Amino acid sequence: MQKMIDINSDLGEGFGPYRIADDETLLSIVSSANIACGFHAGDPVIMDETVRIAMRNGVDIGAHVGFADRMGFGRRAIPMGSRELETSVLYQLGALEAIAAAQGGKVGHVSAHGALGNMSLADADLAASLIRAYKAFDPEMIVVTLPNTEAERAARVAGMRVACLFLADRAYDDAGKLVARSVDGSVIADPEEITRRVTQAIVEGTIDTISGKTIHTRAHSILVHSDTPRAVDIGRSIRAAVEAAGFAVAGLSQRRLREGNDRSYAQ
Amino acid sequence: MQKMIDINSDLGEGFGPYRIADDETLLSIVSSANIACGFHAGDPVIMDETVRIAMRNGVDIGAHVGFADRMGFGRRAIPMGSRELETSVLYQLGALEAIAAAQGGKVGHVSAHGALGNMSLADADLAASLIRAYKAFDPEMIVVTLPNTEAERAARVAGMRVACLFLADRAYDDAGKLVARSVDGSVIADPEEITRRVTQAIVEGTIDTISGKTIHTRAHSILVHSDTPRAVDIGRSIRAAVEAAGFAVAGLSQRRLREGNDRSYAQ
Amino acid sequence: MQKMIDINSDLGEGFGPYRIADDETLLSIVSSANIACGFHAGDPVIMDETVRIAMRNGVDIGAHVGFADRMGFGRRAIPMGSRELETSVLYQLGALEAIAAAQGGKVGHVSAHGALGNMSLADADLAASLIRAYKAFDPEMIVVTLPNTEAERAARVAGMRVACLFLADRAYDDAGKLVARSVDGSVIADPEEITRRVTQAIVEGTIDTISGKTIHTRAHSILVHSDTPRAVDIGRSIRAAVEAAGFAVAGLSQRRLREGNDRSYAQ
Amino acid sequence: MQKMIDINSDLGEGFGPYRIADDETLLSIVSSANIACGFHAGDPVIMDETVRIAMRNGVDIGAHVGFADRMGFGRRAIPMGSRELETSVLYQLGALEAIAAAQGGKVGHVSAHGALGNMSLADADLAASLIRAYKAFDPEMIVVTLPNTEAERAARVAGMRVACLFLADRAYDDAGKLVARSVDGSVIADPEEITRRVTQAIVEGTIDTISGKTIHTRAHSILVHSDTPRAVDIGRSIRAAVEAAGFAVAGLSQRRLREGNDRSYAQ
Repeated sequence: MQKMIDINSDLGEGFGPYRIADDETLLSIVSSANIACGFHAGDPVIMDETVRIAMRNGVDIGAHVGFADRMGFGRRAIPMGSRELETSVLYQLGALEAIAAAQGGKVGHVSAHGALGNMSLADADLAASLIRAYKAFDPEMIVVTLPNTEAERAARVAGMRVACLFLADRAYDDAGKLVARSVDGSVIADPEEITRRVTQAIVEGTIDTISGKTIHTRAHSILVHSDTPRAVDIGRSIRAAVEAAGFAVAGLSQRRLREGNDRSYAQ
Repeated sequence: MQKMIDINSDLGEGFGPYRIADDETLLSIVSSANIACGFHAGDPVIMDETVRIAMRNGVDIGAHVGFADRMGFGRRAIPMGSRELETSVLYQLGALEAIAAAQGGKVGHVSAHGALGNMSLADADLAASLIRAYKAFDPEMIVVTLPNTEAERAARVAGMRVACLFLADRAYDDAGKLVARSVDGSVIADPEEITRRVTQAIVEGTIDTISGKTIHTRAHSILVHSDTPRAVDIGRSIRAAVEAAGFAVAGLSQRRLREGNDRSYAQ
Repeated sequence: MQKMIDINSDLGEGFGPYRIADDETLLSIVSSANIACGFHAGDPVIMDETVRIAMRNGVDIGAHVGFADRMGFGRRAIPMGSRELETSVLYQLGALEAIAAAQGGKVGHVSAHGALGNMSLADADLAASLIRAYKAFDPEMIVVTLPNTEAERAARVAGMRVACLFLADRAYDDAGKLVARSVDGSVIADPEEITRRVTQAIVEGTIDTISGKTIHTRAHSILVHSDTPRAVDIGRSIRAAVEAAGFAVAGLSQRRLREGNDRSYAQ
Repeated sequence: MQKMIDINSDLGEGFGPYRIADDETLLSIVSSANIACGFHAGDPVIMDETVRIAMRNGVDIGAHVGFADRMGFGRRAIPMGSRELETSVLYQLGALEAIAAAQGGKVGHVSAHGALGNMSLADADLAASLIRAYKAFDPEMIVVTLPNTEAERAARVAGMRVACLFLADRAYDDAGKLVARSVDGSVIADPEEITRRVTQAIVEGTIDTISGKTIHTRAHSILVHSDTPRAVDIGRSIRAAVEAAGFAVAGLSQRRLREGNDRSYAQ
């Protein structure tokens, strides 16, 4: 049986007259789409359009939930209690689900955008709230997040399926965590190095850290940043590298993704 | 078998720090709640709170969809194409459904607010779009609207269930249509006259029009305006009058509401 | 010459269909209005209406600037760089000034609302940004803020006029700072005690702290919270107490408010 | 004395993370910038940035006012009463003025965007409201609008200065009005034809209409659409053509623009 790997991207991040990325082309490369739900970005028309293209291309539909902060593009921490957080996430999930369902689609996974995503990595209470909202929406939904984080932990505790994200263009420290963007060398721009790291992560199950060590990692889904100038080229290189390594590019819905019993795991 | 009638009200119309009506008390009077979905009014926290109280009181949960225009409270016609309209309505329905479902509830009916509601009475294309969105969301959902309108027609054509709304505090013309608010005598303020009209509508199945004629009407659901100073008093009077007339106040979910075969109809 | 004291209130905090306070009555009690500028609350129509009533009543017009966060009513800290902060404040000041000027009025003072106000008390960098925006707008504008804070310090350094705010319904600690709302006894609800504290502050120039000490204070302007149930009653009591103590209630524009040379100071 | 002509463009139309046009390059071509004021587009940071580049390049600063409808980019008619319209326009003008003044700049002209602009051409009441707001803000401000319209008429009646806009890429009918975009041939895409029309308009003072007639026109300011793919190229061609015809490209502030006595008029 051929091993599978998912390639995902954050899409539908426009609003009204605005667009961020070349969504249509990226939707011909990725296998899963994280679609903005109208809070940090996106609007009903763009959500509908993104779902339409994703479905036409056999790309899995997921929700990209964020803070209601268009001005800050969801990148600012908006302080809120757990109830506002959970109802805001439910609101976004339901909105996208209704638009997807009207086309015969389904929201099968979820990832948290920007500040919300970052906070969920380290803040156990916030991670628990977030996962509570996800589970209340659909206990079978796949949580896409970085491994070894509060978000992963909360999802595991809740018995939800988790897809571990691999950020090919970011440096990791020896603890397997992302190096902050402010640190020199934290962002990897060279496409060849990016694809090399992808191959290593899925074939060897390892990453070379910023200190030079090689550590184990889990990678079910490779993120292609949509809003960089060469997003399409990098996406294509990653896809080619993955296929050259003998993997099938397949959306998360093709995977069981339950701890201990997912024999389709890359590692 | 006791005849049933629904009493409904537009609730959850606050936003952030703001509130419009005494929702908690009204939710002890009505049998169906039309809950604002965050476009013309409402927000995730208020939607959640309104659903919670409704469910505790056995009140049916419905969506009150509107234009994304908080400043104008959904009372202004925002020009938009059918795709934006339909996806906007799906978005709102899904958002409320997710919040309701997290509490074990369900959005069972829908009504259109303000300008969107008014436009759906007379504009056949817009009514068709609106009903298309409703049906795509849930073909079993009950459409609450004024009878003898494009909205009712479109809902019937689509095979959806319709609950005919009766506005007890508004005058009707001889064609069974609401008299515009700008006309003298179009708004009935006297609580006794309001309850008298309710009793007549449900017991006799008739209304006295502004010209003095008595015409037939269908009334499955009586609207209590939530944002008038005496909303609570009027709601209580209506409920008392309905019960005195031998009707059971029951949410729309208790009714079949399919044309030709609903033996539980008031008339 | 009769001593003067200002009474001010945060007004115009509605939005679209919503209202918070009985602005019209409060505008018959206070001598200065801090008017929301459409970011945390307020909109062009409400700003215009509040200015109109203020001018009719001889009440000074000031800007109440805040974070662009209607959902959180400006009470949440929205992280932003100094450029966004300064341009956001300029935007609000200019918007209110244009509306006031069209009626022959002028924005003569400014105070910061909610989270922005709180942050300006303790965060020297933010306070400096805020004061830079105020000064760029109008170096003659009066900065209304709590004494002994970073905001006061930054305003003094910039050479701006400062009016020291006195919160009659809040407890102070021995350092002259507000006791956090979360502490027992931090909020004073008894109207008699509130007016007693006002009289003491303006006649003696002192406050009794939460520990029982009596410390010196400066009070040029007494804040009447507009959004409490008894706002109007408390406002009237304060005004009566101030007048009974022999002070003239007069807007900040009547004062020089420059350090060292303001002989009209209450203390 | 060399004849002058203005070239203007609608700029600063981004929002938060979004951008529409290559504003920086366009600001090296035009002599006047119509800057979005945060209602249909723009935000405080972008307004500040656009003003900064404009001032560095000696480009005149003007306000581009619109409906508060980011989703529709100000292209939808939002129904509102004259008071909301006037206060909304004042709000936008004041906001931009404060940001400009903080840099030593000044809002010298104004034009209305999208639906608001279109409505002001044909709706005399709306045009009167709009001009009332402009005049209340600054009676010396220059109104940039299409000639032979209600907007021009209202501005003349109010005694305001008017700069007549020439749309080089749009067809005109024999009455000197723009042909609707829905009509074949209404939009001129050929850069050579566009520049030919500009030269004719400023040198001869005439336009060739869609029917083939040649009619008189007044053109003080040539609009370069910023949001077309070749905006920069077209802008450069227009500027070259204007200079080749012996005109100095100069902002509107260099012109008197009062009816009957403006000897610097192109025609």
